[in-house]
Amino acid sequence: MSLYSEIFYSNEINELFSDKNVVATMLQFEAVLAVSQAKEGIIPDSAAEIIEQCCHTDFIDFERLKSDIKLSGNAAIPLVKQLTGIVKKKDVEAAKYVHLGATSQDVVDTATVLQIKGFIDWLEERIGLLEHHLIAITQKHRNTFMIGRTLLQQAKPITFGLKTALWLEGIVRSKARIEEVKKRVLMLQLSGAVGSQNQQISPRVKDIFAVILDVETANSWHTNRDNLAEFAAVLGILNGSLGKIAKDITLLMQTEVGEVFEGAAAGKGGSSTMPHKRNPVTSTAILANANRVPHLVATMLTGMTQEHERSAGLWHSEWEVLTDIMQLTAGTLERSIELIEGLEVEENRMLQNLEITKGLIYAENVSLALASKIGKSAAHELVENACKSAVSERKHLKEKLIELSVDLSENELDELFKPENSIGLSLEIIDSILAIGSKQ
Amino acid sequence: MSLYSEIFYSNEINELFSDKNVVATMLQFEAVLAVSQAKEGIIPDSAAEIIEQCCHTDFIDFERLKSDIKLSGNAAIPLVKQLTGIVKKKDVEAAKYVHLGATSQDVVDTATVLQIKGFIDWLEERIGLLEHHLIAITQKHRNTFMIGRTLLQQAKPITFGLKTALWLEGIVRSKARIEEVKKRVLMLQLSGAVGSQNQQISPRVKDIFAVILDVETANSWHTNRDNLAEFAAVLGILNGSLGKIAKDITLLMQTEVGEVFEGAAAGKGGSSTMPHKRNPVTSTAILANANRVPHLVATMLTGMTQEHERSAGLWHSEWEVLTDIMQLTAGTLERSIELIEGLEVEENRMLQNLEITKGLIYAENVSLALASKIGKSAAHELVENACKSAVSERKHLKEKLIELSVDLSENELDELFKPENSIGLSLEIIDSILAIGSKQ
Amino acid sequence: MSLYSEIFYSNEINELFSDKNVVATMLQFEAVLAVSQAKEGIIPDSAAEIIEQCCHTDFIDFERLKSDIKLSGNAAIPLVKQLTGIVKKKDVEAAKYVHLGATSQDVVDTATVLQIKGFIDWLEERIGLLEHHLIAITQKHRNTFMIGRTLLQQAKPITFGLKTALWLEGIVRSKARIEEVKKRVLMLQLSGAVGSQNQQISPRVKDIFAVILDVETANSWHTNRDNLAEFAAVLGILNGSLGKIAKDITLLMQTEVGEVFEGAAAGKGGSSTMPHKRNPVTSTAILANANRVPHLVATMLTGMTQEHERSAGLWHSEWEVLTDIMQLTAGTLERSIELIEGLEVEENRMLQNLEITKGLIYAENVSLALASKIGKSAAHELVENACKSAVSERKHLKEKLIELSVDLSENELDELFKPENSIGLSLEIIDSILAIGSKQ
Amino acid sequence: MSLYSEIFYSNEINELFSDKNVVATMLQFEAVLAVSQAKEGIIPDSAAEIIEQCCHTDFIDFERLKSDIKLSGNAAIPLVKQLTGIVKKKDVEAAKYVHLGATSQDVVDTATVLQIKGFIDWLEERIGLLEHHLIAITQKHRNTFMIGRTLLQQAKPITFGLKTALWLEGIVRSKARIEEVKKRVLMLQLSGAVGSQNQQISPRVKDIFAVILDVETANSWHTNRDNLAEFAAVLGILNGSLGKIAKDITLLMQTEVGEVFEGAAAGKGGSSTMPHKRNPVTSTAILANANRVPHLVATMLTGMTQEHERSAGLWHSEWEVLTDIMQLTAGTLERSIELIEGLEVEENRMLQNLEITKGLIYAENVSLALASKIGKSAAHELVENACKSAVSERKHLKEKLIELSVDLSENELDELFKPENSIGLSLEIIDSILAIGSKQ
Repeated sequence: MSLYSEIFYSNEINELFSDKNVVATMLQFEAVLAVSQAKEGIIPDSAAEIIEQCCHTDFIDFERLKSDIKLSGNAAIPLVKQLTGIVKKKDVEAAKYVHLGATSQDVVDTATVLQIKGFIDWLEERIGLLEHHLIAITQKHRNTFMIGRTLLQQAKPITFGLKTALWLEGIVRSKARIEEVKKRVLMLQLSGAVGSQNQQISPRVKDIFAVILDVETANSWHTNRDNLAEFAAVLGILNGSLGKIAKDITLLMQTEVGEVFEGAAAGKGGSSTMPHKRNPVTSTAILANANRVPHLVATMLTGMTQEHERSAGLWHSEWEVLTDIMQLTAGTLERSIELIEGLEVEENRMLQNLEITKGLIYAENVSLALASKIGKSAAHELVENACKSAVSERKHLKEKLIELSVDLSENELDELFKPENSIGLSLEIIDSILAIGSKQ
Repeated sequence: MSLYSEIFYSNEINELFSDKNVVATMLQFEAVLAVSQAKEGIIPDSAAEIIEQCCHTDFIDFERLKSDIKLSGNAAIPLVKQLTGIVKKKDVEAAKYVHLGATSQDVVDTATVLQIKGFIDWLEERIGLLEHHLIAITQKHRNTFMIGRTLLQQAKPITFGLKTALWLEGIVRSKARIEEVKKRVLMLQLSGAVGSQNQQISPRVKDIFAVILDVETANSWHTNRDNLAEFAAVLGILNGSLGKIAKDITLLMQTEVGEVFEGAAAGKGGSSTMPHKRNPVTSTAILANANRVPHLVATMLTGMTQEHERSAGLWHSEWEVLTDIMQLTAGTLERSIELIEGLEVEENRMLQNLEITKGLIYAENVSLALASKIGKSAAHELVENACKSAVSERKHLKEKLIELSVDLSENELDELFKPENSIGLSLEIIDSILAIGSKQ
Repeated sequence: MSLYSEIFYSNEINELFSDKNVVATMLQFEAVLAVSQAKEGIIPDSAAEIIEQCCHTDFIDFERLKSDIKLSGNAAIPLVKQLTGIVKKKDVEAAKYVHLGATSQDVVDTATVLQIKGFIDWLEERIGLLEHHLIAITQKHRNTFMIGRTLLQQAKPITFGLKTALWLEGIVRSKARIEEVKKRVLMLQLSGAVGSQNQQISPRVKDIFAVILDVETANSWHTNRDNLAEFAAVLGILNGSLGKIAKDITLLMQTEVGEVFEGAAAGKGGSSTMPHKRNPVTSTAILANANRVPHLVATMLTGMTQEHERSAGLWHSEWEVLTDIMQLTAGTLERSIELIEGLEVEENRMLQNLEITKGLIYAENVSLALASKIGKSAAHELVENACKSAVSERKHLKEKLIELSVDLSENELDELFKPENSIGLSLEIIDSILAIGSKQ
Repeated sequence: MSLYSEIFYSNEINELFSDKNVVATMLQFEAVLAVSQAKEGIIPDSAAEIIEQCCHTDFIDFERLKSDIKLSGNAAIPLVKQLTGIVKKKDVEAAKYVHLGATSQDVVDTATVLQIKGFIDWLEERIGLLEHHLIAITQKHRNTFMIGRTLLQQAKPITFGLKTALWLEGIVRSKARIEEVKKRVLMLQLSGAVGSQNQQISPRVKDIFAVILDVETANSWHTNRDNLAEFAAVLGILNGSLGKIAKDITLLMQTEVGEVFEGAAAGKGGSSTMPHKRNPVTSTAILANANRVPHLVATMLTGMTQEHERSAGLWHSEWEVLTDIMQLTAGTLERSIELIEGLEVEENRMLQNLEITKGLIYAENVSLALASKIGKSAAHELVENACKSAVSERKHLKEKLIELSVDLSENELDELFKPENSIGLSLEIIDSILAIGSKQ
């Protein structure tokens, strides 16, 4: 990951997923477990204290840990072994109480949940920032006319603000999803070897544990992975919505379109052989991630059919993949914020592009206006033919319509060929979205 | 699909996705659009009435529709053309008001939503039935002892009721997800050519429209496909949870395990060459679907980066795929209901299998009991060695432990080697899940 | 599938995958098995004759077959049962020899192979046709200048023939892959219940069988699915290469680019609300398939970890998916042929678009020419600055360079700003590809 | 990746994919380019010499490189810039000739190919070793009787050697695929900015270049990614075949089956809470990878629709994913070698398990024997009924058949119930596979 760490990922959040932090989180599990059990009188307070003191990555031999993982099959077993050794050196008695009643999957899964928790905190804050920039750009370009495009063809005018408002709306819904998934995914795993719990990890211990870590208590989800899959899917969907924005921007940045540009930075987007190019570097990184994350989500989904009380392989396939999903999502989101914050909008080019079809984009406008006079079908047919003639004769559609003496005055026609009269309810839609956006 | 229609799909719901019903739903859109516009005075009541009368599949030439789809690129364009022709024959004036202000994607997307709505109704009812069977089997087998297995190895005893209660819990969470996604996915698409709406499809028309169809009103989601992707993911997760159940059952049905069997039916699960076999036919169908659906969900996710105001290809890739997801989910769910309803549980075999390891599965039990006397680490080591000796000498672990004069009385040992003293809090967990399940 | 059968699929080949043909192919297996066994003296010739006569779909009750599949778990068991009944009515003795020594997976897998064989025959013929059209368009547009684009930015001139020649090259390699996969995928499955064969399906019987069906003989691949997975991947790759062509065409068809158009047909590509649009309907269908097939290939790959001697679920997940892959590929290929055959090329628009950047696309050309005089780095820097100035002053780059008195004569500059002097070795590359293409 | 580097990956090959080696390979491209151009007289020999001397990772500032990648969008641009600076310090003149005529994608793609080349070398050697172990285990267990299982049900006897011989056959076919893909994937990328080449990278320069690097020369495949996709798929298929082996082993290692065990190692496969367990740690790692790689292959496939002459995003999505595929494959293969080399086979348990069904597994054997006397259908029916009675009366099938006075002598029956008479042509199949295997 390292060579491309700054393009596909986010430096801000990478540390959360470092080996050191993963191990720290697992040690946090062991510390809190001891503390919770001490509060319930299951283990001595003194033992809990010593265990807690020993739960620090400084004491861990990472190289040994990594080679032991290969033998034990997961990170918890050798870590607990090291921890027990560390505690033992301090207090032989206390060492008896390390990891009491828990199973290795409890440690690994809860550590994952704690990472997810840290990730969601960051995510929500950054989505807020993205929304802020999307609201700002929408407000600024509420009335910036541009062409709406369907199937990559010019269709009818909209405003750039409508486009960005709808971008925003997708993100707002992702935020709602993240909010909803929290109650399901931020849950304790503390269930013992086969998910049946035991007296050492009683409901009361679990409650204390859950309160300390600020997560939900839960029954065993050792092989019920729906919640992790849901979380993965929620991130996959966010990536998709951000990918859609990046896709639009790469298309709008095309030399032949030129309606927006990524913010310039010294050395950014240059080509080694074509000094004039302004490459969509940031959008490109987002689109790369948007092609990767869906498949990682699918890995989580095909990984759900886990056997009995612990899976042989499917559980293990989640470890790096879920982390990859979070890290790529962080990169996508950080790139998206940079993208929207720095976006340069070429209003004049947007206006010029509205004229490329010589009025054809106003055809529906004319058609609707005519429909009220001669019926929808006849209007559609008349306008369709006018368009064909205009194209073959290389004339402007308005000119052609005048020539055909359609049932509309020149004044009416003038109005029909103005973008401001052809954007439907763009402004109303924008305002309604902004009203919701600003409430949040 | 047809040859395998009864194995991978559900006959109950297939009709919902028939060509005829798809077209009927699209015609429903056109009818309700006209009615809504008439209520707002946008089109004459008489026109709406005639349009509504004409919106019937009997009038549609399906063969022409199918070949026209190839030319037009979607089903709405040629359907609206046929409908307009039908209306025109009845009333030339009314024909002017067909499909007024709407775009083809409005029709296709809203029709999809109406199918989703019908599907969810069926789904919720059937999930209720599955829950009913899962609750019943959990109640019945609350105290049926069996071995819990991790990494396909016998680990520690649980009860079969704990296994089924946890199956149930996964399904209950899927139900919650379906409930939550409804508010987002059951939404009207009525946005006009480029998503900017227009006077013919004003907010008030949309409100009326949404009320009649009992869906949410919404801004254009022509290229914001997060909600469909979410719905797909929610179904993918349900399939995964059901796949997990089927996986467990195929493993439990193994000749060497023999703890449960799919309900017998005349002619079911026979082999053409091995007359004695009892194949997990139903579970097999579920597992087949569980390997297919995740990839279809990924198709929806990779399909999210849709261009501008309507995509050239990605939108189109959703049509059949979303239907496939719903149909396969229906099959998976129906098979799962049959599976759980008919499941035969071999309690005696479960008890026998608890004895296969000659007491080794009680090792943790012993280890925990000893831990309170000689410390966790020493206990673990002692029991580990006892296990090794027992295995190499082909002795029962209890016998070996007595031989080793461990710090436990024979009476204590007897208790430690009973499954009822080794199931942790299985019964408490079951009861808490049933308490929630029965409240619903 | 039916509503969209003409857009995503090919009518030419759909029949190959009909229920009727699937069953016919399975019956062909049974007939050839009996014939082969008779030739080896394993069963009486008379029995083989009667069995062969009965192997006809007219005798099959398809409805019963479909409902029996649900009970038996595959199509072979109930089909063999029906066939045996049919034979029995004719000759009780002959009925003893139906399906002798074979297992149901032998029937299903070999039937699949026979469908693949028919499909490959069609595929190779159609790829030949596509190549023919690609060669023709490449020859025609060998010297048609257009801009080459990288990261959706105008970069340097090429010819349209270079683009299509490289499209062709991708297809040629797919053809080679299909040729190579044949020897592995077109192989008999005739291995008996657990893949160990038996005297009834001896090597000699298998050899005869394989010769009659013109496939390779093979050991059991009941749970070695690498060859089907490879075949799926080969088709997936072909879809990707065709998707790349369609992607380019949708981009070139953009209103702002307008360099190529899909062939027009009455009623094709029209919009219900925008009478002027010329939608990329055919490319869109290809791109839809290109977003679907990769995920179906992944299903085949995740389906490879099949258990023991026959899988419970993963094998079953292949049945419809492999068919879907073939059918979607057929649609993609047929659409691609239509697309290339009918493609309209706007040479003038291509020339106009070469002027959009006011000479910036020739910057590398200038840079390389200058490099030989002042060094690559200095040249790069000088040209980069000239470009910036030209852009900010809205001047043509040539004009700016003259202004800057660069170390190139006006005559030299004139030549450097001609597309014909900026296409590198485009023509040589085209010719080398055509030389290979025409040899085939 | 690091925490799990020893479980999912291979230490032997990880270095090949280190940042340092990636950059070294890119520098190798630049060095060989200069040398090739010097040989053709395009640049001075002295310049090439200096450039070659400077192409060393020691001179590279990796931190700057990583942050510059974010701005430039790929690794080649900032690397060439650094390299040019380094050369310039030595010789201003030589600096003019760095990276002459090439484009950044040429560097990145060719570097990828060189890594693939190194990877394939390692892969082929290691597959050879795996084959060696598979041949050895097959020879050893040619006559080790065990039960064949279909749909996880005991079916009919085979030998363990047949199972391993068929495992081997899957691997042998993967080797053939790797051999075939080499000619397509090991190809030079040296095509210039838009794939049209130029005089600096003439066919002769490319030929020299290709000879030095021992790869094929090729036209631009900047956006023809079929070959990389094929290579990814070939590795995906290998993973699938290895995953199938691991799946079988996890199933055979089940406590209730106990027919094989992963080789023991100190500390391997222990459980933190269940001291007696012998977890399938190695198989589990393989199965984890087998659930990941297919989705990464799908990423390569969905990434094929690359735009024009260089893609904005899809190309970029390949970089880490292709590396991940290779690294996971290396891990899977290394684990598989360890797995097969160390596999412990419990021949006695296999024999015991053959008796679990009390003779039912010989039912087909009896059925076939009877068929020759009373016809297949009658025999099938008789045996089916005998099986049912045997099961309900808890009798051995042979006993029941004697009781039913079937048309077979006790002596005949004795023979029919011996595994050696029920393994079909297992031994012949094994020998034919070994004959091919040992030839290689």
